[in-house]
Parts: sequence; C-alpha cells; structure tokens
Amino acid sequence: MRKLDLLDFQILQILQEDARKSYTEMGHLLGVSEGTVRSRINRMIEDKIFYFIVHTDPIKVGLNVQAIIGMSTRLGYQEKVAEELGKLRAVRFIGAFSGRNDLIIQAYFRSNEDLVTFVNKDLANVEGIVSAEVSIELKQYKDSFSYVTLDGLEDNAG
Amino acid sequence: MRKLDLLDFQILQILQEDARKSYTEMGHLLGVSEGTVRSRINRMIEDKIFYFIVHTDPIKVGLNVQAIIGMSTRLGYQEKVAEELGKLRAVRFIGAFSGRNDLIIQAYFRSNEDLVTFVNKDLANVEGIVSAEVSIELKQYKDSFSYVTLDGLEDNAG
Amino acid sequence: MRKLDLLDFQILQILQEDARKSYTEMGHLLGVSEGTVRSRINRMIEDKIFYFIVHTDPIKVGLNVQAIIGMSTRLGYQEKVAEELGKLRAVRFIGAFSGRNDLIIQAYFRSNEDLVTFVNKDLANVEGIVSAEVSIELKQYKDSFSYVTLDGLEDNAG
Amino acid sequence: MRKLDLLDFQILQILQEDARKSYTEMGHLLGVSEGTVRSRINRMIEDKIFYFIVHTDPIKVGLNVQAIIGMSTRLGYQEKVAEELGKLRAVRFIGAFSGRNDLIIQAYFRSNEDLVTFVNKDLANVEGIVSAEVSIELKQYKDSFSYVTLDGLEDNAG
Amino acid sequence: MRKLDLLDFQILQILQEDARKSYTEMGHLLGVSEGTVRSRINRMIEDKIFYFIVHTDPIKVGLNVQAIIGMSTRLGYQEKVAEELGKLRAVRFIGAFSGRNDLIIQAYFRSNEDLVTFVNKDLANVEGIVSAEVSIELKQYKDSFSYVTLDGLEDNAG
Amino acid sequence: MRKLDLLDFQILQILQEDARKSYTEMGHLLGVSEGTVRSRINRMIEDKIFYFIVHTDPIKVGLNVQAIIGMSTRLGYQEKVAEELGKLRAVRFIGAFSGRNDLIIQAYFRSNEDLVTFVNKDLANVEGIVSAEVSIELKQYKDSFSYVTLDGLEDNAG
Amino acid sequence: MRKLDLLDFQILQILQEDARKSYTEMGHLLGVSEGTVRSRINRMIEDKIFYFIVHTDPIKVGLNVQAIIGMSTRLGYQEKVAEELGKLRAVRFIGAFSGRNDLIIQAYFRSNEDLVTFVNKDLANVEGIVSAEVSIELKQYKDSFSYVTLDGLEDNAG
Amino acid sequence: MRKLDLLDFQILQILQEDARKSYTEMGHLLGVSEGTVRSRINRMIEDKIFYFIVHTDPIKVGLNVQAIIGMSTRLGYQEKVAEELGKLRAVRFIGAFSGRNDLIIQAYFRSNEDLVTFVNKDLANVEGIVSAEVSIELKQYKDSFSYVTLDGLEDNAG
Repeated sequence: MRKLDLLDFQILQILQEDARKSYTEMGHLLGVSEGTVRSRINRMIEDKIFYFIVHTDPIKVGLNVQAIIGMSTRLGYQEKVAEELGKLRAVRFIGAFSGRNDLIIQAYFRSNEDLVTFVNKDLANVEGIVSAEVSIELKQYKDSFSYVTLDGLEDNAG
Repeated sequence: MRKLDLLDFQILQILQEDARKSYTEMGHLLGVSEGTVRSRINRMIEDKIFYFIVHTDPIKVGLNVQAIIGMSTRLGYQEKVAEELGKLRAVRFIGAFSGRNDLIIQAYFRSNEDLVTFVNKDLANVEGIVSAEVSIELKQYKDSFSYVTLDGLEDNAG
Repeated sequence: MRKLDLLDFQILQILQEDARKSYTEMGHLLGVSEGTVRSRINRMIEDKIFYFIVHTDPIKVGLNVQAIIGMSTRLGYQEKVAEELGKLRAVRFIGAFSGRNDLIIQAYFRSNEDLVTFVNKDLANVEGIVSAEVSIELKQYKDSFSYVTLDGLEDNAG
Repeated sequence: MRKLDLLDFQILQILQEDARKSYTEMGHLLGVSEGTVRSRINRMIEDKIFYFIVHTDPIKVGLNVQAIIGMSTRLGYQEKVAEELGKLRAVRFIGAFSGRNDLIIQAYFRSNEDLVTFVNKDLANVEGIVSAEVSIELKQYKDSFSYVTLDGLEDNAG
Repeated sequence: MRKLDLLDFQILQILQEDARKSYTEMGHLLGVSEGTVRSRINRMIEDKIFYFIVHTDPIKVGLNVQAIIGMSTRLGYQEKVAEELGKLRAVRFIGAFSGRNDLIIQAYFRSNEDLVTFVNKDLANVEGIVSAEVSIELKQYKDSFSYVTLDGLEDNAG
Repeated sequence: MRKLDLLDFQILQILQEDARKSYTEMGHLLGVSEGTVRSRINRMIEDKIFYFIVHTDPIKVGLNVQAIIGMSTRLGYQEKVAEELGKLRAVRFIGAFSGRNDLIIQAYFRSNEDLVTFVNKDLANVEGIVSAEVSIELKQYKDSFSYVTLDGLEDNAG
Repeated sequence: MRKLDLLDFQILQILQEDARKSYTEMGHLLGVSEGTVRSRINRMIEDKIFYFIVHTDPIKVGLNVQAIIGMSTRLGYQEKVAEELGKLRAVRFIGAFSGRNDLIIQAYFRSNEDLVTFVNKDLANVEGIVSAEVSIELKQYKDSFSYVTLDGLEDNAG
Repeated sequence: MRKLDLLDFQILQILQEDARKSYTEMGHLLGVSEGTVRSRINRMIEDKIFYFIVHTDPIKVGLNVQAIIGMSTRLGYQEKVAEELGKLRAVRFIGAFSGRNDLIIQAYFRSNEDLVTFVNKDLANVEGIVSAEVSIELKQYKDSFSYVTLDGLEDNAG
C-alpha cells in the first residue's frame, strides 16, 4: 500500500463530512485540480483505504430489532463459525474479540420473533457455537463514520 | 414519513451493492427514468431513510486498535453520559442495550497507549460512568451495510 | 383482531380493579346498556384480549417454595425445551429472554426437597438444557395484573 | 386461617380450569348444593386463598415490551425500594430473591423508548438501587395459573 | 419426632456452651434430677436432635489448606455426585444450593499440591461434574455451633 | 504447641468416630492406661487441638433456612465486618476467602422472612459490606467432622 | 532505538538459554570476536532491549503464597493506583489489561495471613481501588523467559 | 535443601539489585572473601534457589501483543494441558490457580493475528481446554524480580 499524504487525509476528512461533495468543490477547497482529487480518490479506493456506501436507517426499512450477540465458540471453530455467519444477511458485523465472548456480532431483525428464529434455527445450524448471549439495542445515541483525523498522517508519512 | 414502495426498496438494494451506481444506470435496470430515480433518492435522503457515507478502513488511516467498551452507568445518567461520549471523535457508535452493560460503545484508537488514556482521562471526565469493560477487536470478519431486503416492504406498504 | 376503542379500555380498567363487577353496574358506570357491556366482553374474550382467572396464593395451598429458574439451552433446543417444561404443572411461566439465560421460568413447589427433585429428575429428563440457575423467592412485594392504561388506546385506535 | 378441606381444593381445581363456571354447575359436579359452593368460595376469598382477576394479554393492549429487571439494592433499602416501585403501574411483579440480584421485577412497557425512560427516570428517582440489569422477553411460551393440586391437601388437612 | 419442650431447649443451650457439663450440674442448674437430664439427652440423641462430636482444628492436625469448592453438576447427576464425594474423607461438607453453583462442598487438604490432586484426580473420577471453582480460606473468623435459641421452642411446642 | 505423636492421632481418630467413648475403653483399644488417655486428651484440649461440642440439627430446632452468603467488603473493612457479624448468633461460620467474594458466611434462620430481615436490617447495620449474595441450602448431603487421618502425623512428628 | 540485526538476535537466543555464557564462548559460536559480542551486549543493555537479572524461586526464600489479584479501579485512578502499588515490594508485576479487571497484579507473600493483611491494609490505603479479586497459585507449571525468536528479526530489520 | 543463612540472603539482595555485580565487589560489601561469595552462589544455584537469566523487553524484540489467558480445563486434564502448553515458545508462564479459571497463562505474540491463530490453532489442538478468555495487556507498570527480603530468613533459619 502506498503511504497516504496530507492531501489524501484532507480529502478523507471532507468526504467523511459529506460523501457527495463534488470533485470540483474539493479541488477548490484544497487548491488542487479536480483531476488530482479524482486520481487520489481512485487510488485510495484501489488501495481499499475507504469505499462509498449507503448507510440505511434499519428501523425505517422495517428492521425494528437491533441486537449485539456475544458468542463463545468451540476452540478451533471461530473462523468457520465467522464464515458461516458471514453468509447471513441479517448479520451486519462480525469480529473476534478479547474477553468472555470470543466472537461478537451485530445483527438486525424485523421482530423479536425473527430474532428468536435466528438464534434457534440459524445459529443452531452453525457447528461450533457453544453459547450466544443476546443484548437488545434499546436506543441508539451515535453511529458515525467520521473518525479520520490528521493524527493518522504521521504514521503513514514516509 | 412517507411509506416506501417497491421501487424505493429496489433502489436501496442496488445502492447497497454499489453506492456509486449512476442514476441513469439505475433507471435502465429498473425501467424508469433517471429523473424518477433522482427524485426517489432525494426524497429518501430527506426522510432520513439512508445517507451516503465513506467507510474508511480504520487500520489504514492509523487507527490500529478497535475496541468495544461495555459500560454501566449510574441510574439517571445514561443519556448525559451518551451525550458527552458522543462529542469524542474516537467514539464511533453508542447504544443503550439490555443486559449487564447498559451502554455499549465502539471506539477506534491509534495505540493501546491511546486507549489507556481514553479510559483514564476521557471516560474519567464524564460523570456517571460506574464501570467500563474493554474488549479489543482481534480480527474483523465482516462489516457490511447491505441489510436491506424486500421483506421490509410489506410493513411499509400502505 | 378488531381494534379496541375507548369503551373496551374502560371496561378493562373496571375489571382489573374488580373482576366480579356485574355487567349492570359496569353499564351504569359507563352510561351504556348491560347488553353492550356483555357483547364487548364476549368479543374481547373471543379475540383473546383477556380472560377471567382465579389467582390463588401459592403458599396458602401448600406451595411454600417459589423459584425463578434461569436456563441456558443448547442452540436449537429452546422451543422443544419450552414445550416439555410447559407440560409440568409446577411450571407457572416460561419465557425466552435476552441475556445470559435464554429461558426463564417461574415454578412453585411444596418444599425444597420437591425443588431439588424437580431439578434433578424433571429437568434432567428434558433434552437440551445446558444449565439451570435457581433463585428462591424470599419475599413477595407485588403481584398485580392491573397494568391496562388508556395509553394503549391510541395504538389500537383505527 | 381455616384449614382447606377436599371440597375447597376441588372447587379451586374447577375454577382454575374455568373461572366463570357457575356455582350451580360446580354443585352438580361435586354433589353439593349451590349454597355450599357459594359459602366455600366466599370463605376462601375472605381468607385470601384466591381472588378473581382478569388476565389481559399485554401485547393486545399496546404493552409491546415485557421485561424482567434484576436489581441489586443497597443493604437496608430493599423494602423501601420495593415500596416505591410498587407504586408504578408498569411494574407487575416485585419479589426479593436469593442470588446475584436481590430484587427481581417484571414490568410492561409500550416501547423500548418507554423502557429506557423507565430505567433512566423512574428507577433513578428511587433511592437505594445500585444496579439494574434488563432482560427483554422475546417470546412467551407459558403463563398459567393452574398450579393448584390435591397434593396441597394433606398439609392443610387438620 | 417428639416435640421439644422448654427443658429440652434449656439442656441444648447449656450443652452448646459446654458439651462436657455433667448431668448432675445440669440438673442443679435446671432444678431437675440428673436422671431427668439423662433421659432427655438420650431421647434427643435417639431422635437425632443433636450428637456429641469432637471439633478438631484442621490446621493443628496438618490440614493447612481449607477450601470451599462450588460445583456445577450435569442435570440429573447431583445426587450421584454428592454420594461419590461423600465417600472422600477430605470432604467435610456437601450441600445442594440455589444459585450459580448447585453443589457447594467444604474440604480440607494438607497442601496446595493435595488440593490440585483432589481436583485433577478425585473430582475427575466422579462422573457428572461440569465445573469446579475453588475458593481458598485465607483466614477463619468464626466457626461456632451455638445457634440454638429459645425462639425455636414455639415452633416445636405442641 | 507440643508436637502430636501417634497416640494423640489414634485418640483423635477414635473420638471423631464416637465422641462419647469412655477413657477406659480407649485405653483398652490402644493398650495404654486410662490415665494416659485422660492426660493426652487434657493436653490436646489445652493446646486447642480439638474441643467437644454438640452438633445440633438446625432444622430440628426450628432453623429451617440455612444459607451461605458471599460478601464483598470495602477494602480495609473486612476484619471489622467479620467482628460485627461474629456477634450475631444466626451466623455460624465466617471466613475470608480468595475469589469473587472476600467473605463467606454460613447462617441459619427460622424462615425466609427472618433471612430477609437479617439481610436488610442486620447486614445493613454493619459498615463496610458492599454486596451480599445469598445461596439457600436446598438439601444437605454431608456434614462430617471426621477428617483427621494419620497422614497428619508426619508433619507434626518432631 | 537502533534496529536489531541477526547477530543481536543470535546473542539474545544464546543468553536466554544460558545467561552466564562467556563472551568468548559466544564469539566462538557465532564466528565473531569477543569484543564484538561485548559491544553488542552493551549497546542492547543501553537500549533497554534486555537486562541481566536473578530469578529467585519465591517458595525457597519463604514466599509461600503467590497470588494474582485482579482489580477494578475507579475511572481516572488507574495510573495513580499502579504507581502506589509499584512501591510495594510484595508486588512483582502490574499491568493494565482489557476485560473485567482493568489492573492485574502478581504478588508474593509469606503466608495467607500476610496476604489478608496486604488486602486489608496495603490495598485499603491506596485510593481508587474499587474491588480486588484474589486468585491463589496452586501449582506452577512454567515460568520461562526464553521467548526471543528469529521471527522478531524482520520487524526490526531496517 | 540446606537452610539459607543471613549471608545467603544478603547476597540475593545484592544480586536482585544488580545481577552483574562482581564476586569481589560483593565480598567487599559483605566483609567476606570472593571465594566465599562464589561458593555460596554456586551452592544456591545447585539448590535451585535462584538462577541467572536475561529479561528481554518483549516489545523491543517484536512481541507487540502480551496477553493473559484464563482457561478452564476439563476435570482431570489440567496437568496434560499444562504440559502441552509448556512446549509452546509463545507461552511464558503457566500456573494452576483458585477461582473461576483453573489455569492462567501469560503469552507473547507478534500481532493480534498471531494471537488469534494461537487461540484457534494451537489451543484447539490441546485436548481438554473447555474455554479460554483472553485479556490483552494495554500498559505495563511494573515487572520486577526484586522480591527477596530478610523476612524470609527466619523461616529458613535452622
């Protein structure tokens, strides 16, 4: 991966405030040409620094029940479990973590009934899950992707 | 909020696969005009159904330590704690949950040292946090936002 | 299910204070005929909105030990476990819950000895129970069924 | 309290199957007069052996969120906490229990938002609650009050 | 079992202060004959109300490590596990309890090494023990058997 | 303390099987004079190796509820808490332990009501108890004091 | 810090097998002069790559009780607590960790009595410790410092 | 093992401050000949009182991730598990402990990825590990081996 320079970070900071800002506007703001902005963005996407996504409000598309499920997997099965769970659309996030639950997932459901079915049918079909502890999201206070800061620059600076 | 119809859901499904698909292409795929696509997208953004964001790989911008922190707050302080934490850029997600930790946050740091400072300085400055249990992400298996399905249609259909 | 209107809610509120109030008295209180009260009650019972029961003090009929038992079931066995437990008369309540115990039951016993037998014989015969943690009720402070309020009206209003 | 005899227990068993069975029918079934049935029932109600209630399906009256909340109270405050919680209509059941939570309540809410408000406002106003751990009911499998058996007879028999 | 009367309780109270008090002395103190004391004591021993034992200080006979071990047994195995453990001399006490560990034992060992061997060999040989959590006694503050009070009289009084 | 020799251990072993064995009988069994037995016993009691007690069945004297209570004390208060608890007759045993509860007590009560009062009144009056988790004894399988073995001899042998 | 090269790693590997190997011997083994070995070792010590220590068997110098103590500190006090604990000779290791205990220490004591005193006196004197959970080492299976491998070379290679 | 005397303890105390102090210097400080120092040190090493080691800073040789892993082993497998883990170079320390995890290990890794591989591959290959809970070291405050004090002298003095 190529090192990111100040311009890359500045572009990222603009995009995380407004992902639809036009290349021309960005060029004006940063004092470079639209072509420079475009080529930097394309290179960063190619290097998988970031990608453009739509972030849909789950409740507004009928996914009323958001859950975090902490799982404990049988030793040696974590990767396979993660792979199987990864195929399920309801599962938004899967990570291996330190602590009492070695796998933590975030998943969205249309109803409690769907969540119960998920636990009793879908999880039951995945070999290697020892236990699953469900936490229901009662209220969401923040869900932001604007975590890029210039602090990251120095580590990447060549 | 206006009800979403089949076309809205179809547009969302295309966008969650490729957030940069042009309106013209979407129109072709769905058999409607580019103007229809545009007006539907604008209305959904207005109704806060979804928004466009950039999803940056935290590790690639120097945020090497990702943590989930389960917190227990003093009764009556949850909202205020969430509000204070929400101001911190390191904190990506904050939710109130059922279970042993009433508040769960996800946060990104440049190093373990920064995480220790966050816990000992930033969290210590927020009144009402009784305890904080840190889980370190060891490996990420999935982080997807493609959870929209046509199942959501019937609940929204008028 | 038909929507409940104000009159239905008013009848429910009277009944939850005094389940034996006569239809005539209710008619007087609400300014409607006894026949109207009767037909509303019959319709609500038909729609399973409520039913008349006797609530017996367990201690006074010799059920001296009340317990809440949190269970963890093997993934995929929850429903079957609930079905088997449901056949046991000692088991008053069974629910699937979020959190560390996926199944919580309330059960009444004549003695500690009977509770031990229940755990060691009855539960042992049900396939799929991984663990069972018993909590003994030491004192009961409230056991009320008067939770109907007019707040529920707006959701049901057509 | 007067001892319950076989006839009392037989009446209770009939009533727990059908709380609206007429005294005449019960008399026929048990081979006694309607007057005997009536006087037994009145005496048992007077002795607080049982009472007639309506059991309303919480979901059907808009109480969509059922929770069990395990609480730990400051030593010496349990009774006062129970008394304060007992005044809240949302709280259906309060008991002191052995185990990690000394107080367990069951409560019904219209929405997650109401539950969050209950925890953050109502519980916060009650002095002496150290912690509260919420479990959300995901599915109800049984909620029966038919636990009276003839086994109770011998303990009560004089 | 015959009911205990005031004299029985008075004898128990004297004995729990001094188990070697002579029958003659007790008779004097209580204003009854030595024969009466003797016959009461014999009857209580026959009825298994109490028995005379020697209470040896474990440390002084080389049992330097005292432990409480909380166990979780497989459903249906508790009684069998208790029976097997009961044969081991190191095990002083075994009880079934409410809570996270369904079986709690107290056991004495000559050294940590012996305790490790007990857990890894003796417990491993008993079928049905799922887990065992050891707590080491660091200091003993009280170990008394003087819990008999006259309060017990009324329950036993005929 | 004087070292215990083989004869001392043999006497202890006889006494732990039958605490009322006469000195003469013991002398016969061990091939020594009654006087030798007597002087050894007196010396051991003087050295607090053991003492004679009566072990009363708590249930038979009306103490129907036996509990183990795990406590967590404020740092620095353990000894004071133990001292205060030691004054309460209901408290049979107090020990400091490794693990999640630094103080474990065993206590006997006449009823659940008395246990609730103990927790809410007696414990609340003792400064320094942070939390108390009650486990109720459901069944007792063993309560023996016959743990002296000849293995202890070698450590004591001079 | 200067980068470590292959020779540095080779020297470390020899030293971790035998810390008293002479520089001459090492020179022979590695095909370099004794002076080169010496200067490399001095530079690594100067750069705090490693240092020479004596590792004493705690039991053999009378430290019979080894404990790991997991602590939870008040938010904002971790560093200060660590600093205070660091002054105590009994405390061998202090680290901040993820998970339920934010501070884990290892400490050695002459007896259980000393450990109890440490918890009740020394820890009680340090402001900011909320709880301390003691685990007693029952048997040590490995305590090695030979963890240097050539794998570390590539990260350090310039 | 021979008893350690004052001189032995004094030598240990000097060495734990500076493991490379010359025998001559020590002799001067203690008022004995260099030969005496040498013979005492040799005898203590022979008796395994202590040994000389190099203590390498794990981070400086590329071992960036330090973890404490609490394990629960199947009854009867602890020793075998410890033996297998002992062969792995990443594992620095293994001990059997009281408490919820019967085996606690400390291990060093080059990256989170290596730690995940260790848990999922290496631990999975060891028969008898029921669960493993990882705690990541976030900051190290103390890692000292200077725990020898003159207090140990009296226990060893003959």
